[in-house]
Amino acid sequence: MSHRFHHLLAIEPLNREQITFLLDQAKPFQEFQRHPLKKLATLRGKTVALAFFENSTRTRISFGTAASRLGADIMNLQADSSSLKKGESLIDTIRTLEAMKPDAFVMRHSSSGAAELVSRRVGIPVINAGDGTHEHPTQALLDALTIRDRLGKLDGCNITIIGDILHSRVARSNIHLLSKFGANITLCGPAMWVPRELECLAPKIRRVMRLEEALEGAAVVMALRIQQERLYEPALAADEYILTYQLTPARLKLARPDAIVLHPGPMIRGLEIDPAVADSAQSYVLEQVTNGLAVRMAILFELIAGSADMQEGAKDSHVAH
Amino acid sequence: MSHRFHHLLAIEPLNREQITFLLDQAKPFQEFQRHPLKKLATLRGKTVALAFFENSTRTRISFGTAASRLGADIMNLQADSSSLKKGESLIDTIRTLEAMKPDAFVMRHSSSGAAELVSRRVGIPVINAGDGTHEHPTQALLDALTIRDRLGKLDGCNITIIGDILHSRVARSNIHLLSKFGANITLCGPAMWVPRELECLAPKIRRVMRLEEALEGAAVVMALRIQQERLYEPALAADEYILTYQLTPARLKLARPDAIVLHPGPMIRGLEIDPAVADSAQSYVLEQVTNGLAVRMAILFELIAGSADMQEGAKDSHVAH
Amino acid sequence: MSHRFHHLLAIEPLNREQITFLLDQAKPFQEFQRHPLKKLATLRGKTVALAFFENSTRTRISFGTAASRLGADIMNLQADSSSLKKGESLIDTIRTLEAMKPDAFVMRHSSSGAAELVSRRVGIPVINAGDGTHEHPTQALLDALTIRDRLGKLDGCNITIIGDILHSRVARSNIHLLSKFGANITLCGPAMWVPRELECLAPKIRRVMRLEEALEGAAVVMALRIQQERLYEPALAADEYILTYQLTPARLKLARPDAIVLHPGPMIRGLEIDPAVADSAQSYVLEQVTNGLAVRMAILFELIAGSADMQEGAKDSHVAH
Repeated sequence: MSHRFHHLLAIEPLNREQITFLLDQAKPFQEFQRHPLKKLATLRGKTVALAFFENSTRTRISFGTAASRLGADIMNLQADSSSLKKGESLIDTIRTLEAMKPDAFVMRHSSSGAAELVSRRVGIPVINAGDGTHEHPTQALLDALTIRDRLGKLDGCNITIIGDILHSRVARSNIHLLSKFGANITLCGPAMWVPRELECLAPKIRRVMRLEEALEGAAVVMALRIQQERLYEPALAADEYILTYQLTPARLKLARPDAIVLHPGPMIRGLEIDPAVADSAQSYVLEQVTNGLAVRMAILFELIAGSADMQEGAKDSHVAH
Repeated sequence: MSHRFHHLLAIEPLNREQITFLLDQAKPFQEFQRHPLKKLATLRGKTVALAFFENSTRTRISFGTAASRLGADIMNLQADSSSLKKGESLIDTIRTLEAMKPDAFVMRHSSSGAAELVSRRVGIPVINAGDGTHEHPTQALLDALTIRDRLGKLDGCNITIIGDILHSRVARSNIHLLSKFGANITLCGPAMWVPRELECLAPKIRRVMRLEEALEGAAVVMALRIQQERLYEPALAADEYILTYQLTPARLKLARPDAIVLHPGPMIRGLEIDPAVADSAQSYVLEQVTNGLAVRMAILFELIAGSADMQEGAKDSHVAH
Repeated sequence: MSHRFHHLLAIEPLNREQITFLLDQAKPFQEFQRHPLKKLATLRGKTVALAFFENSTRTRISFGTAASRLGADIMNLQADSSSLKKGESLIDTIRTLEAMKPDAFVMRHSSSGAAELVSRRVGIPVINAGDGTHEHPTQALLDALTIRDRLGKLDGCNITIIGDILHSRVARSNIHLLSKFGANITLCGPAMWVPRELECLAPKIRRVMRLEEALEGAAVVMALRIQQERLYEPALAADEYILTYQLTPARLKLARPDAIVLHPGPMIRGLEIDPAVADSAQSYVLEQVTNGLAVRMAILFELIAGSADMQEGAKDSHVAH
């Protein structure tokens, strides 16, 4: 069976083998970030179009650096300079870029489903770099790579995710990925952000309202970024969130002694996470960032160089998604 | 006779031979966009300065991609991050960039004549990427390449241009280019946007107020982008424009059966063009975009690599413009 | 003794030998800007992170072009698209970028001391591209290169600096640099911008309130950019500044006949400088810009390729700053 991918739109439709394949592909690129010379000619002559219709810094720089280090050229479209303001449709903007012959799209958009919509209208691979509250698949892959490196495996791991699960595409992609490996997933946060419906996302999900209880036995603790505009009285005051849900050293002690702390960034120190936790030896936040480069290089390589292989006759390949 | 160019500021001063030369130069670069590896070393070690003093997405990305695929480095100046806000003059901004030794300027500016003004003050080639309501020469060249490919020749072709001709640098450059080949040019739009003075631009221009009449016998139909801020009551309501001037399938049937539809983009579907026309087999809008890359690669190659040849002794060369 | 640098944060802690070493290193890169092919492979496989937390055009383009011409890749962070808006701390932003494994930071920030703060938290070289009202060391180096080329040496030169000295990091870096070579430095401007405390910056500084007197005997005249928001009545009207401190041809005649005029740019013609002076043969403003590229290429080369040498065994090297 082949693991060829046409697009990377979401984690949900992938199976264990496909995810494991992508994580394995990322290993040499993880090593590569330690080389003194970080430049390959693998994708020389290829062009990666970064189509960001929603503001981003780290994800855009991460994909751009991944593409450059593979030797690719970059087309950079940022929403605030886009034609969209002039009334052009999303599909027309994308198809105009496609007519300049890039070899893949990396796309971020504030609407859930936007990347999939685009993938059905273009003839090149589309990588979802975050679509609304739906998915952020490369984030889940870099988290999984970080977890697998530390725990040795993904299977059956205990993870606690804290914060605004409802609106988080990071949480959603992580839940889909880890549950395929039989993870025990505990969701914790204010009731309005952790509704009962989330239990339907995957098996072995439980909702625990008290953070102290939610952390018991956790091998992985993931604090989500809190969007401050969602904290307002009377529903939820920032002070109350900090008091009840901030990841502090005392609370972290309730998890396993070797538990690792993840955060998708950007962190707001003093809100969702205590600086002492962010800077502790248990924090793998910066390793997540480095692993993000490795995962994105692997995806770009697989979708661009891999799909070229397909066109040259691998007709028996089993195409995923 | 040589066709060497120092700058590309406008179509108006060029002759048929010069235009034909540039279109012929673009042919191999048109083919090149279909290669799986789109990277040349032709302009390696050269720098192209993109000086955009007016917002743009597609034209900036098109020139940037053209430069990258020729192997050149890019200096990227965008107006909203420019020193101009601090009170520096346009010429000082440009000469500061020039002191960093780029090999060509690609310049867009909201003032008609800005590119020519700059060309008289710098020692490197200047390419006008749109100046006010004056000219947009690479757009006219890519349109001409598209037309010549489909019709076999430019000579004597019947073209109908629809919309706000008065304020359109795209229309102006197209009129100058096509009229040099004896084209029959029909201009159509609301009276305030198609004043009698436009007939003086070139011979064989006629103004036709009724779109149905204007389309008769057309081999090329070009719909211009309508700037919505120019549509206001009582002068002209958007509804009225749509009713009278939108390019619909029914109206397109009045042109030749094999007529091609062009649009400089970005399109506003449902305003100047019916989506059914935009997506029809007669629409060459995306081919225009691809041809834009080819034309821009040819121009950059000619002005940068070509001018180097001149300095090395081609003293009998006849310099255009 | 070695002149190895870990960072370039300020001119103040450097000694004459270190400054002379950097200026000497810039000479071949100055020559290089005249080559028809401006591309080296020296830093191929290296990445330069441009972290600009304050708006800039010329300095960002200058460093970016310097990095590209050395063959390096670029990570481009601009403040207005940064995570800082979302509440992330400066150090977290920088360490996130660092986790993507760049080989040097070029950093601009509105807070004095920001670059040094960052340098203590990261493991790669930091170049200060301007921090608040503190220093702008590459500007002082490019000014010194320009002066040394014209005057033959820096030692004991007479320089007059005009304008808002108090708030100018350019002035501060220049004063530190030139005073190490025994320069005679005359500061001139409105009293509120040239306070007595400035005399403590270095020996041989004198404050002269009348511009005509300040210019007598000057071999170098440096006009600073006036920030128009600092000109307001009743403290200081723009008209009054122009009348009293504008560098005019008549006033320039009071300096040495071969005095050179410098300005860090962007210039506001008609405010701090008369256009006739800006465009005169005595103006070396554009040469400053070209020298900026040379100095920045030398610094990037020294900090990135130089520090690599150190790691490979130059253990006796004497590390500066």
